[in-house]
Amino acid sequence: MPELRKDPIIGRWVIISTERGKRPSDFSIEPEVSNVGFCPFCAGQEDKTPPEIIAYREETSEKDSPGWWVRVVPNKFPILQIEGHLNRAGEGMYDRMNGVGAHEIIIETPDHHKEIFELENKNIEDIIWVYRNRIIDLKKDVRFQYILIFKNRGTGAGALLSHPHSQLIATPIVPKRVKEELRGAKSYYEYKERCVFCDIVRQEINTRERLIIENEDFVVVEPFAPRFPFETWILPKVHACRFEDIQKREVISLARVLKEILERINKVLDNPPFNYIIHSAPLNNAGLPYYHWHIEIIPKLTKVAGFEWGTGFYVNPTSPEEAAKFLREVEE
Amino acid sequence: MPELRKDPIIGRWVIISTERGKRPSDFSIEPEVSNVGFCPFCAGQEDKTPPEIIAYREETSEKDSPGWWVRVVPNKFPILQIEGHLNRAGEGMYDRMNGVGAHEIIIETPDHHKEIFELENKNIEDIIWVYRNRIIDLKKDVRFQYILIFKNRGTGAGALLSHPHSQLIATPIVPKRVKEELRGAKSYYEYKERCVFCDIVRQEINTRERLIIENEDFVVVEPFAPRFPFETWILPKVHACRFEDIQKREVISLARVLKEILERINKVLDNPPFNYIIHSAPLNNAGLPYYHWHIEIIPKLTKVAGFEWGTGFYVNPTSPEEAAKFLREVEE
Repeated sequence: MPELRKDPIIGRWVIISTERGKRPSDFSIEPEVSNVGFCPFCAGQEDKTPPEIIAYREETSEKDSPGWWVRVVPNKFPILQIEGHLNRAGEGMYDRMNGVGAHEIIIETPDHHKEIFELENKNIEDIIWVYRNRIIDLKKDVRFQYILIFKNRGTGAGALLSHPHSQLIATPIVPKRVKEELRGAKSYYEYKERCVFCDIVRQEINTRERLIIENEDFVVVEPFAPRFPFETWILPKVHACRFEDIQKREVISLARVLKEILERINKVLDNPPFNYIIHSAPLNNAGLPYYHWHIEIIPKLTKVAGFEWGTGFYVNPTSPEEAAKFLREVEE
Repeated sequence: MPELRKDPIIGRWVIISTERGKRPSDFSIEPEVSNVGFCPFCAGQEDKTPPEIIAYREETSEKDSPGWWVRVVPNKFPILQIEGHLNRAGEGMYDRMNGVGAHEIIIETPDHHKEIFELENKNIEDIIWVYRNRIIDLKKDVRFQYILIFKNRGTGAGALLSHPHSQLIATPIVPKRVKEELRGAKSYYEYKERCVFCDIVRQEINTRERLIIENEDFVVVEPFAPRFPFETWILPKVHACRFEDIQKREVISLARVLKEILERINKVLDNPPFNYIIHSAPLNNAGLPYYHWHIEIIPKLTKVAGFEWGTGFYVNPTSPEEAAKFLREVEE
């Protein structure tokens, strides 16, 4: 019998279609087309990107030249533009504003062929520090209400270039999904006087059924009502609403679990395209007792059909308990 | 300058990325792989599907044999099952229930190679009547709260079989997107004392910028804040919350505009995969002054990247005004 499950944060029901139950080898993954030839993100091509915003580099090296291991540049083709005013305006019954914002690329390594999970722990820590530092810098701009940090890996997941990179988009509005999480988490908090994410962390540690990795600071779990097969969340154990408040020890800890879970996903699913997205509180808040930052990882394994777009009603062919089992048991 | 636009119903902001402005020929559409050989939906293969629920057929022909022009059968691999009780239950902090529901296939024609928009008007009318009649029948089952009717055309849009068909799914819950539309439309109504969809119809008829087709009963428009390029809506001009209340004249009228807009989309975009979904009010209501049924058509032209999934924040490379222009001007 298929099962309907409700996401406890935003209240979305999903169908876990166990009878169509899919094991990792049942998914057909399109082979990755690696960019060949010229790549503007490789070491030695620094003049092919806009001038760098920040880079972690050897002391003796110069700006916009080799010698870096993480490098942040403005996107050459930004979806939002940094200059200008919002000019909110009506158009009859409709609302519009100028597409003002920031769009940056975090180049994770000078090496074209090194996946993020193949890097040393120290390098992954630096990528996380760069995420944090860019948010802290961009927060000063009062036009921005939210900063999205995400990674598209593989053409199937929307990446245009195969060189490992993440992206940052600062927006003058709070994205819809974040608003839904805030609304849902707030209403849970008003009823229970507890953070829904803290409750999830507690229940998942207790039952262990969907738990994949646990260390001092983080848990990695399959959520109870995942939209996609092998959808995976990383949650800090201690309540914190803002990613950018992360402390040194936590960065070390997060780098380890991020590397480990991405390695496991890569192994179990045989090199799938994937996305991850950092979900954090909107920029201007005094600290939210009901929201809890986390990272969502989504391997791209299924085609999403029309009615899923149109209705927000998802069918997932792999139960999270099964997915967790595969991800726990894979040999490292 | 890119533009941020807000959907007046559910409040979602989208980026209209005019600088990346894409014309129809800029989209690369994967060639369609047509099923060859055996097809269970073709005339003569009636015993390969579960027994038919209803069919419009020649009087002399027998059930589950050729002679039909529209035929409805249960899905052989349903995502929800018709038998059983819901058994809502908790699992710690989580909620679940049995996947009880209906999942039916509406085979639109016995001819494997005839697209819905290549059928005669009369045949399309019959498909619409079948949609309506199945809803009216399934409504009697008190376990169901919502009935989704949709079509996936082409593998890129999630269709598993190329024989023209639509699907019906009756669910024991109201899908999330429908709930959002209801909530947004209600709050507009409370403020303005007018239906937001009626206001959209009026403004689009006035400005004509995004209007593609208008007849006595329906308008076909590009919405002001579309998530996808060439996203297209069909709205009845007169307020009505339930699709299944459609009258004879309106069925004739709807068949005509549906055929015409799908023909135009097919021509302008060169045979794209697409989905359409009928958005209607939940089953048990006494008539909603604030909700207005409509059809959303989504050609599948762009890959949706991770951050769009994760955030509900869409980037659309074609403005609806441009898309409307192409769809108005294409020669028939």
